[in-house]
Amino acid sequence: MKKIGIIMGSDSDLPVVEKAIETLRELDVPYEVHVFSAHRTPDEAKEFAVSARDRGFGAIIAAAGKAAHLAGALAANTTLPVIGIPVKSSTLDGLDALLSTVQMPGGIPVATVAIDGAKNAGLLAAQMLAITDEELAGRLSAQRKEAAAKVLGKNKTIEEKFNQ
Amino acid sequence: MKKIGIIMGSDSDLPVVEKAIETLRELDVPYEVHVFSAHRTPDEAKEFAVSARDRGFGAIIAAAGKAAHLAGALAANTTLPVIGIPVKSSTLDGLDALLSTVQMPGGIPVATVAIDGAKNAGLLAAQMLAITDEELAGRLSAQRKEAAAKVLGKNKTIEEKFNQ
Amino acid sequence: MKKIGIIMGSDSDLPVVEKAIETLRELDVPYEVHVFSAHRTPDEAKEFAVSARDRGFGAIIAAAGKAAHLAGALAANTTLPVIGIPVKSSTLDGLDALLSTVQMPGGIPVATVAIDGAKNAGLLAAQMLAITDEELAGRLSAQRKEAAAKVLGKNKTIEEKFNQ
Amino acid sequence: MKKIGIIMGSDSDLPVVEKAIETLRELDVPYEVHVFSAHRTPDEAKEFAVSARDRGFGAIIAAAGKAAHLAGALAANTTLPVIGIPVKSSTLDGLDALLSTVQMPGGIPVATVAIDGAKNAGLLAAQMLAITDEELAGRLSAQRKEAAAKVLGKNKTIEEKFNQ
Amino acid sequence: MKKIGIIMGSDSDLPVVEKAIETLRELDVPYEVHVFSAHRTPDEAKEFAVSARDRGFGAIIAAAGKAAHLAGALAANTTLPVIGIPVKSSTLDGLDALLSTVQMPGGIPVATVAIDGAKNAGLLAAQMLAITDEELAGRLSAQRKEAAAKVLGKNKTIEEKFNQ
Amino acid sequence: MKKIGIIMGSDSDLPVVEKAIETLRELDVPYEVHVFSAHRTPDEAKEFAVSARDRGFGAIIAAAGKAAHLAGALAANTTLPVIGIPVKSSTLDGLDALLSTVQMPGGIPVATVAIDGAKNAGLLAAQMLAITDEELAGRLSAQRKEAAAKVLGKNKTIEEKFNQ
Amino acid sequence: MKKIGIIMGSDSDLPVVEKAIETLRELDVPYEVHVFSAHRTPDEAKEFAVSARDRGFGAIIAAAGKAAHLAGALAANTTLPVIGIPVKSSTLDGLDALLSTVQMPGGIPVATVAIDGAKNAGLLAAQMLAITDEELAGRLSAQRKEAAAKVLGKNKTIEEKFNQ
Amino acid sequence: MKKIGIIMGSDSDLPVVEKAIETLRELDVPYEVHVFSAHRTPDEAKEFAVSARDRGFGAIIAAAGKAAHLAGALAANTTLPVIGIPVKSSTLDGLDALLSTVQMPGGIPVATVAIDGAKNAGLLAAQMLAITDEELAGRLSAQRKEAAAKVLGKNKTIEEKFNQ
Repeated sequence: MKKIGIIMGSDSDLPVVEKAIETLRELDVPYEVHVFSAHRTPDEAKEFAVSARDRGFGAIIAAAGKAAHLAGALAANTTLPVIGIPVKSSTLDGLDALLSTVQMPGGIPVATVAIDGAKNAGLLAAQMLAITDEELAGRLSAQRKEAAAKVLGKNKTIEEKFNQ
Repeated sequence: MKKIGIIMGSDSDLPVVEKAIETLRELDVPYEVHVFSAHRTPDEAKEFAVSARDRGFGAIIAAAGKAAHLAGALAANTTLPVIGIPVKSSTLDGLDALLSTVQMPGGIPVATVAIDGAKNAGLLAAQMLAITDEELAGRLSAQRKEAAAKVLGKNKTIEEKFNQ
Repeated sequence: MKKIGIIMGSDSDLPVVEKAIETLRELDVPYEVHVFSAHRTPDEAKEFAVSARDRGFGAIIAAAGKAAHLAGALAANTTLPVIGIPVKSSTLDGLDALLSTVQMPGGIPVATVAIDGAKNAGLLAAQMLAITDEELAGRLSAQRKEAAAKVLGKNKTIEEKFNQ
Repeated sequence: MKKIGIIMGSDSDLPVVEKAIETLRELDVPYEVHVFSAHRTPDEAKEFAVSARDRGFGAIIAAAGKAAHLAGALAANTTLPVIGIPVKSSTLDGLDALLSTVQMPGGIPVATVAIDGAKNAGLLAAQMLAITDEELAGRLSAQRKEAAAKVLGKNKTIEEKFNQ
Repeated sequence: MKKIGIIMGSDSDLPVVEKAIETLRELDVPYEVHVFSAHRTPDEAKEFAVSARDRGFGAIIAAAGKAAHLAGALAANTTLPVIGIPVKSSTLDGLDALLSTVQMPGGIPVATVAIDGAKNAGLLAAQMLAITDEELAGRLSAQRKEAAAKVLGKNKTIEEKFNQ
Repeated sequence: MKKIGIIMGSDSDLPVVEKAIETLRELDVPYEVHVFSAHRTPDEAKEFAVSARDRGFGAIIAAAGKAAHLAGALAANTTLPVIGIPVKSSTLDGLDALLSTVQMPGGIPVATVAIDGAKNAGLLAAQMLAITDEELAGRLSAQRKEAAAKVLGKNKTIEEKFNQ
Repeated sequence: MKKIGIIMGSDSDLPVVEKAIETLRELDVPYEVHVFSAHRTPDEAKEFAVSARDRGFGAIIAAAGKAAHLAGALAANTTLPVIGIPVKSSTLDGLDALLSTVQMPGGIPVATVAIDGAKNAGLLAAQMLAITDEELAGRLSAQRKEAAAKVLGKNKTIEEKFNQ
Repeated sequence: MKKIGIIMGSDSDLPVVEKAIETLRELDVPYEVHVFSAHRTPDEAKEFAVSARDRGFGAIIAAAGKAAHLAGALAANTTLPVIGIPVKSSTLDGLDALLSTVQMPGGIPVATVAIDGAKNAGLLAAQMLAITDEELAGRLSAQRKEAAAKVLGKNKTIEEKFNQ
């Protein structure tokens, strides 16, 4: 199976990014994790993107805050799909990272998920691999059903508490 | 090759969506176009999503404005990747559609592109298929190089005009 | 009397929703509480909406955060009035939920209250039933007068403290 | 049948409000239209709200722009449901009117629809009356089906144009 | 000397409002403090505004949060200057109260100060009275000079700490 | 009677400011108009503010766009009340001017009106002078009544058109 | 004298950028103009930044819209000061470009000017060179005085028109 | 070497400003620190700016919150480059300070860094001096490399933890 590259702009983004890692692990999707900064180590970031397809990656997840250029900088150097996680920082409640990630100019897409939405970034990466991987698609379906069952279970608890 | 489903919430979204269609056509990616509304024809929207994988779709593009639920409503009914295009309408400059599309809760990702960013939606869909399709990956690379050449051409014109 | 359906998208919304429940209980309006997610259990959500009128509901209250589609998804499946409570989550201070709930396209209204405004959602639901229920209208008036009296009491305390 | 009161803060709001009038007319719901300003004719606005229930009104629609207090001012003087239409004016793209209308304090709800969302205001008012009026509920269902049929028709046109 | 009326929409606004009270006390400007809600006790609010000029008031300060209609509701019922303090509440960081207070339609001005800017509301009220009261103008000047001296003192401390 | 100083940061603000001039003229309030820029002619701006009280001014109106510092710069140099008009420019829809004008730090108030709200700036200035000028207060009341009558007239036209 | 590099992300930014060019020309500051895209020609952009100091540049101006990464991408590859001009595009009124340009992480500064503020970008670049260039500083002072004289001239026209 | 002037509008801004001081100290760039308020001590602020070039300053850093006029007020009185740090205060998450600092009108630039971005303000000031100071340019390069090495070190730690 193709691997997923998980890149964070700073190791301070790890608490957010961990949910993406965990999601891929649960789905048995192989991954690699790196810290590359679009601004402080731009060459390493570029190099990763340029060689990613040849090194067996299927998609890249990039998490960054503030003027979050990381996902775009990676996307500019590969035609693999790049998934951007805007990370909330100490001001502006994540709006800066969201707009910096999602408002990409025509030609260089970034598949943006919610602010701090690392779990969905992991799922989205898995969904991309599952386009041609029926077993993975099956695991995604199963997980979806479990999540539904969990909601239904909570519904039952609430119904028992409030409805007679 | 897998097909891309292109769904718009209203036929008034067509001027935006056309760039996605054109992009897929240029890349020789097969597609189908539909008008399904998350609110006015929710059953048709759901049915499309539920059966999309079996009907040979690899990914779905959904375009909608205002409280843009279409991408999320489709994503809730398939594990195929769903790409959301927030469409600008007459108030709030597209911010409502952007937040309604991108801020999805954990479990149901939507790969969101820029407001009115239909060209990138088309590219992103092609990139997803190209994970396992080397020829398409080649066409994406070629197109990327052409775009770069075009910028370099414009650079030359500007340099000649302003620098002696 | 018709019942009010109170639906939350996740049981984590309960602390907000409880004020709606409490308000209806104080006004002796019957209600049912459920957890249905527009994205994780879309079928259950739809089914509730589709059958709500026949099952004796007069209005539905829906609370959800982030890209809050729940109220709209219910409203798409019933012609009963649906009241939306946008729930504040960890980013964007509730603005995402507000816009996702209130900016509905023409044809499918959602009666939106303030962010986390569950008490008013309960009152609004009661007001709808009270259009044709004079006794309930009386209880609403009485409650309104009590609230006014409370403000006047606080006014008195403040006046005594600050004005001689 | 109960009547719907349609109040606009200024006659310049009429182009927006007309869609609410038209919607009620199509549904055979009786209505009255007035221009009362929360700030320039506060007494007339209040008087209308105070006597509305006794004069046979079932709900009130209020449209206003900028620091849009009209819906709240009416709601403060009646326990009938008040529906607020935030009207976009020349600055801030309607955000001021939206927040001024929807962010009501606990105790005095306003059922807010989208910025300039007059059609949905009309529908919501009709839905409220239809809680106990099966014939009107039938007309709402019929209209909903027509709207769905229209979307399906547009879907057909688009499908024929783009899919072979 | 004319009095200043200080009205808060809820006694929970007192921690903010206290700085206005304190400012007026320091400047020896007489005042009265009340709790009147534009929505829960609209009659008392109106009555206060209508009679304020005759009762010896020179200006009114109004503090309210969320869809903050209080200043506007008072201003609609008097031609005395009304000063609005938008109060920050639990969502939207005060933006809702700011826009609801400042974006008044033509004809009914509200002199708006910063979010939670109660000290400036007190100063502004005093400045209004000082237009024709030279002694108060003198006290305002003196206070201004003291504030400047305080900044200069802090400057000295900082200079001594950082500059050699 | 005291005069009102009307200062605009650029003569391009005149179309907005004219409504303040007109309002004062209708109320027979004397005024002076100037173009002083907080940034391009800071000395002239300061000098005006410093000497304004002695030169017979009762209040100052300041209109500016973008990072609108003019009102604050004047207020820093006088204890007369300063009224700020945030002027909408080509980006951000006036939000920059509004926040730059209203969010003044404690100690230096600016009485802010709506974006482009020049008419209300004129009225507010007149209201300040009318605190101790009964004749002007009378003219303000008369004008308020005329405005109300005008709304009532429009109400009549609308009622005749829509209600039978 | 050092040169100023003026880089735009797309030739469609030229109408904005021209004011920077014109400003530098008026001040006799040498410059070079290029079109390099952070995303479509990232290598050319980087190469320019890496070699800029050695090639005699003193500062770089970068103009870009939407998720405007250009200034940051250049700044990541040089220790010359980089001035960012956020360019307004068709959605979000320039807010996306502003936040993407200004909210840079610690370590890689971008000197950001107003949205579409190309004239100030030119001035700022000249000011940087003028730190050690007294003649250029003189020209800046002279130009500043001219601008002040122009405002004073406009002031005179306005004063003659409105004040007698 | 030229000195950098570091001005804060209030000593409460010191915790933010300290990172600028520290950055300059690390780079051996001389500086002076002052507390001058654009509104409370406008004369001292002006005087500093007017004489700064003659007193050996090369650039000025100004930090202020809310309606942050300090950087603009200094820039209006010098042709030295002025760097603005918007400081986050208790409401609006720093957006008010950002817009008040960056949206300067044509003619008076302020080089704006991120909200609370004091470290970058120090770096930017050093970069300006380094245009003609090769040794300082060398120290900036060295520091940049150290920062990159630090990121690479963190990358290594993360890689060892997550990749096998």
